[in-house]
Amino acid sequence: MKKVGILMGSASDLPVVEKAFAALREFDVPFEAHVFSAHRTPVEARDFALSARERGFGVLVCAAGMAAHLAGAVAANSTLPVIGIPCKSTVLEGMDALLSTVMMPPGVPVASVGIDAARNAALLAVEILAVSDDALAARLDASRAQAARKVLDADAKLQAELNG
Amino acid sequence: MKKVGILMGSASDLPVVEKAFAALREFDVPFEAHVFSAHRTPVEARDFALSARERGFGVLVCAAGMAAHLAGAVAANSTLPVIGIPCKSTVLEGMDALLSTVMMPPGVPVASVGIDAARNAALLAVEILAVSDDALAARLDASRAQAARKVLDADAKLQAELNG
Amino acid sequence: MKKVGILMGSASDLPVVEKAFAALREFDVPFEAHVFSAHRTPVEARDFALSARERGFGVLVCAAGMAAHLAGAVAANSTLPVIGIPCKSTVLEGMDALLSTVMMPPGVPVASVGIDAARNAALLAVEILAVSDDALAARLDASRAQAARKVLDADAKLQAELNG
Amino acid sequence: MKKVGILMGSASDLPVVEKAFAALREFDVPFEAHVFSAHRTPVEARDFALSARERGFGVLVCAAGMAAHLAGAVAANSTLPVIGIPCKSTVLEGMDALLSTVMMPPGVPVASVGIDAARNAALLAVEILAVSDDALAARLDASRAQAARKVLDADAKLQAELNG
Amino acid sequence: MKKVGILMGSASDLPVVEKAFAALREFDVPFEAHVFSAHRTPVEARDFALSARERGFGVLVCAAGMAAHLAGAVAANSTLPVIGIPCKSTVLEGMDALLSTVMMPPGVPVASVGIDAARNAALLAVEILAVSDDALAARLDASRAQAARKVLDADAKLQAELNG
Amino acid sequence: MKKVGILMGSASDLPVVEKAFAALREFDVPFEAHVFSAHRTPVEARDFALSARERGFGVLVCAAGMAAHLAGAVAANSTLPVIGIPCKSTVLEGMDALLSTVMMPPGVPVASVGIDAARNAALLAVEILAVSDDALAARLDASRAQAARKVLDADAKLQAELNG
Amino acid sequence: MKKVGILMGSASDLPVVEKAFAALREFDVPFEAHVFSAHRTPVEARDFALSARERGFGVLVCAAGMAAHLAGAVAANSTLPVIGIPCKSTVLEGMDALLSTVMMPPGVPVASVGIDAARNAALLAVEILAVSDDALAARLDASRAQAARKVLDADAKLQAELNG
Amino acid sequence: MKKVGILMGSASDLPVVEKAFAALREFDVPFEAHVFSAHRTPVEARDFALSARERGFGVLVCAAGMAAHLAGAVAANSTLPVIGIPCKSTVLEGMDALLSTVMMPPGVPVASVGIDAARNAALLAVEILAVSDDALAARLDASRAQAARKVLDADAKLQAELNG
Repeated sequence: MKKVGILMGSASDLPVVEKAFAALREFDVPFEAHVFSAHRTPVEARDFALSARERGFGVLVCAAGMAAHLAGAVAANSTLPVIGIPCKSTVLEGMDALLSTVMMPPGVPVASVGIDAARNAALLAVEILAVSDDALAARLDASRAQAARKVLDADAKLQAELNG
Repeated sequence: MKKVGILMGSASDLPVVEKAFAALREFDVPFEAHVFSAHRTPVEARDFALSARERGFGVLVCAAGMAAHLAGAVAANSTLPVIGIPCKSTVLEGMDALLSTVMMPPGVPVASVGIDAARNAALLAVEILAVSDDALAARLDASRAQAARKVLDADAKLQAELNG
Repeated sequence: MKKVGILMGSASDLPVVEKAFAALREFDVPFEAHVFSAHRTPVEARDFALSARERGFGVLVCAAGMAAHLAGAVAANSTLPVIGIPCKSTVLEGMDALLSTVMMPPGVPVASVGIDAARNAALLAVEILAVSDDALAARLDASRAQAARKVLDADAKLQAELNG
Repeated sequence: MKKVGILMGSASDLPVVEKAFAALREFDVPFEAHVFSAHRTPVEARDFALSARERGFGVLVCAAGMAAHLAGAVAANSTLPVIGIPCKSTVLEGMDALLSTVMMPPGVPVASVGIDAARNAALLAVEILAVSDDALAARLDASRAQAARKVLDADAKLQAELNG
Repeated sequence: MKKVGILMGSASDLPVVEKAFAALREFDVPFEAHVFSAHRTPVEARDFALSARERGFGVLVCAAGMAAHLAGAVAANSTLPVIGIPCKSTVLEGMDALLSTVMMPPGVPVASVGIDAARNAALLAVEILAVSDDALAARLDASRAQAARKVLDADAKLQAELNG
Repeated sequence: MKKVGILMGSASDLPVVEKAFAALREFDVPFEAHVFSAHRTPVEARDFALSARERGFGVLVCAAGMAAHLAGAVAANSTLPVIGIPCKSTVLEGMDALLSTVMMPPGVPVASVGIDAARNAALLAVEILAVSDDALAARLDASRAQAARKVLDADAKLQAELNG
Repeated sequence: MKKVGILMGSASDLPVVEKAFAALREFDVPFEAHVFSAHRTPVEARDFALSARERGFGVLVCAAGMAAHLAGAVAANSTLPVIGIPCKSTVLEGMDALLSTVMMPPGVPVASVGIDAARNAALLAVEILAVSDDALAARLDASRAQAARKVLDADAKLQAELNG
Repeated sequence: MKKVGILMGSASDLPVVEKAFAALREFDVPFEAHVFSAHRTPVEARDFALSARERGFGVLVCAAGMAAHLAGAVAANSTLPVIGIPCKSTVLEGMDALLSTVMMPPGVPVASVGIDAARNAALLAVEILAVSDDALAARLDASRAQAARKVLDADAKLQAELNG
């Protein structure tokens, strides 16, 4: 199976990004993660992107805050699907990172998920790998069914509280 | 090759979405497009999503404006990768559609591209299909090289104007 | 009397939604509440909406955060009045939920109240039921008079502090 | 049948509000419309609100732009359901009117529809009247079916263009 | 000397508004303050506004949050200068109150100060009364000089820290 | 009668500001207007502010766009009431000018009106002068009554159209 | 004298950027301009940045729209002062470009000017070069004096109109 | 070496601004800092700006919140490069200060850094001084290399955690 590459612009993004690690482990999808900054270590970020396909990566996930350029910088150097996670910082509630991630110019797409939505980024990565992997697709369906059951369990608990 | 499914919430989104048609044709990627509304034809939108994988689709692209629920409604009924195109309407400059598309709850991801960014949505779909299709990946690289040449041609023209 | 149906997209919305429960109990208006997610349990949300009128519901109230599609998804499957409560999440101060709830396309209205405004959603539901129920309307007027008295009590207390 | 009362804050809102007139006529729902400003004719706006229920109104629809107080001012003087239409003006894309309409304090709800969404305001008014009027509810269902057919017709036209 | 009238929409605004009380006391400007809500006690708010000039008020200050209509409702019923204080609530960082306060329609002005800026509202009221009261104007100038000295004292302290 | 001083940051603001001229002429209130920029002619702007009270001005109105500092710069040099008109420029819909005008620090208030609201700025200036001028106050009341009549005329016209 | 380097992300930014060319010519400051995209020609953009100081550039100006990464990408590869011009595109009024340009992470600054503010970017570049060039500084002062005269001429014209 | 002048509008900005002090000390760049308010001590702010070049300053850094006019007021009185630090206050997340700082009118540029980005402001000041100081430029490059090493150290630590 192809690997998921996960980059984060700063070690301070790790608490958010760890939710992506957890999701990928749920699906037994191999991943490699790095702290590479588009602005402080541009060489490493670019080199990772340039060699990612031949190194066996199938999807790249990039988490960054503020003027979040990491996903775009990676997308500029790879035609693998690049998923961006805009991270909330101490100001502007994450709007800066969202716009910096999603408003890419024509020709170089980034797939943005919601602010701090690392779990969804990982699930999207799994969905992409599952396009050509029916077993993985089946596991995604099973995971969705489980998520539905959690909602229904919460509903059952509410019914018990309201009617009990 | 798997097909790309393209849904738009209203025929009025067609001028935006046609850029996606054009991009997919550039890459000889088969697609099927529909006008299905999450709110006015929820049955058709859901049924399309539910059967998409078995009908040979690999990626779904959904374009909608305002409270743009189409991508989310499709993602709720399929574990295929779903790409959302938030469309600008006559008010709020597209911010409503962007937030409605990208801020999905944990468990049901949507890959949002920029506002009205139909070409990027199509390129992202091609990138996803190319994860398991090296020939398509090569064509993506060639297309990027061509896009770079266009920029360099513009630069050459500017040099001529400035220095000529 | 017709019932009010209350749906919330996640059990985490319960602290907000409980204010609606309280308000409906003040007016002795019967209600039924469920945790149903537009994205994680789309079948249950839709089935609830489709059968709501014949099951004796008169108004549906839907609370959800982020890309808050629940009210829209319910409105797509029922012509009962649907009231949306946009819920604030940890980012963007509730603006995402507000726009996702209120900016519905022509043909499928949602009645949005303010962010986290569960009490107002319940009062609006009561107002709707009171259109054909003069006793209930009288109770609404009495409740307003009581709310006014609370304001005037606060004013009296302020006068005492300023002039005392 | 109870009437719908429609107020607009300025004659310049008429081009928007006329879509509400049209929708109400489709459903043969009687209405009365006025140009009353919360700020320039507060007496008339208040008196209309105070007497609305006894004059046979079932729902009140209020359209206003900028610091759109009309719906709130009417809601302060009536416990009928009040629907607000925030109107876009020449600045701020309608965000000012949306927030001024929807963010009502606890106790005095306004049901906001989207910016300039006069047709949806009218449909919501019809839905409210239909809570106790099964014939009207049936006409709403028929109208929804017709709206769905329009979308499917647009889809059929698109299929013809793509495959023809 | 004419009095300043201060209205707040809710007792919860009192911690903000008390800064206005303090400022007016600094200038020995008489004031009267009330908790009157545009939506919950519209009669009291209006009656206060209608009689304010003849009761000896020279300026009216109105503090409210969310869809902050109080200043506008008062301005609709008085041609005294009305100053609005938009108050921050638990969502949207005060932007809703700011736009609801400041974006008044032509003909009925409100003088908005910044979010939660009760001290500035009071100072503006004093400035207005000082237009025809040279002694009060002199006290304003003295107060400004004192504020400048506070800044210069802070600067002196910083110099001591940096150079000491 | 004291004069109104009107400053605008650029001659390009004149089309907006001329509505203030017209309003002041309606009330026979004398005014003096200048093109003075806080940034390009800071000396002239400051000198105007510093001498305004002794030169017989009672209120100062300042119109500027973008990072609209003119009202603040004038307020920093005068304790006369300063009214700010935030002007819409070609980007950001006037939000930049609104925030730059209204969010003044404690101690130096500016009275902001809505974006491009020059007529309201002038009316507010008249209201301020009328605090100590009963004849002017009476003219303000008459003007309000006339504005109300215009609304009622528009309503009468609408009734004729709807019922005619 | 050191040169100013001007990069724009797309030839479509040229109409904005040409105002920078004009300003630099006014001051006889040499410049070199290129169309280099951070995303479509990342190699050229980076190589330009890496060699800029040794090639005699003193300041770099970067204009880009949407998720405007160009200034950041250049700043990541040079410790020359980098000035960013956020360009307005067809959506979001330039807010996306502004936040993408200005919200840089600690360690890699970009000097942002206003949206589409190419003339100011050029003037800022001249100011930077003038730090060590007294003759250039004198020309800046002269230019400011000329700008002031233009404002005063506009004021004189206004006086003639008002008093003439 | 020329000095950096640092102004802050209030002593409450000191915790933010101290990061600039620290950065300048890292580079042994001399600086002078003051608490001067554009609105409360306009004379001191202006006089500082007017004499800054002849007093040996090469760059001016101005930190202010809310309607942050300080950078603009200084820029209006000096043709030295002026860097603005928009400071977050208790409302609006710093958006008010950002727009007030960056959206300067043509002719009077301010170089804005991100919200509360005092370290970047200082680094930008050093970059500006380094344009004509190769030793300082070398120290900037060394500092960048050190920042890169910190990122790579964080990456190494992450590798140890993931693979260890």
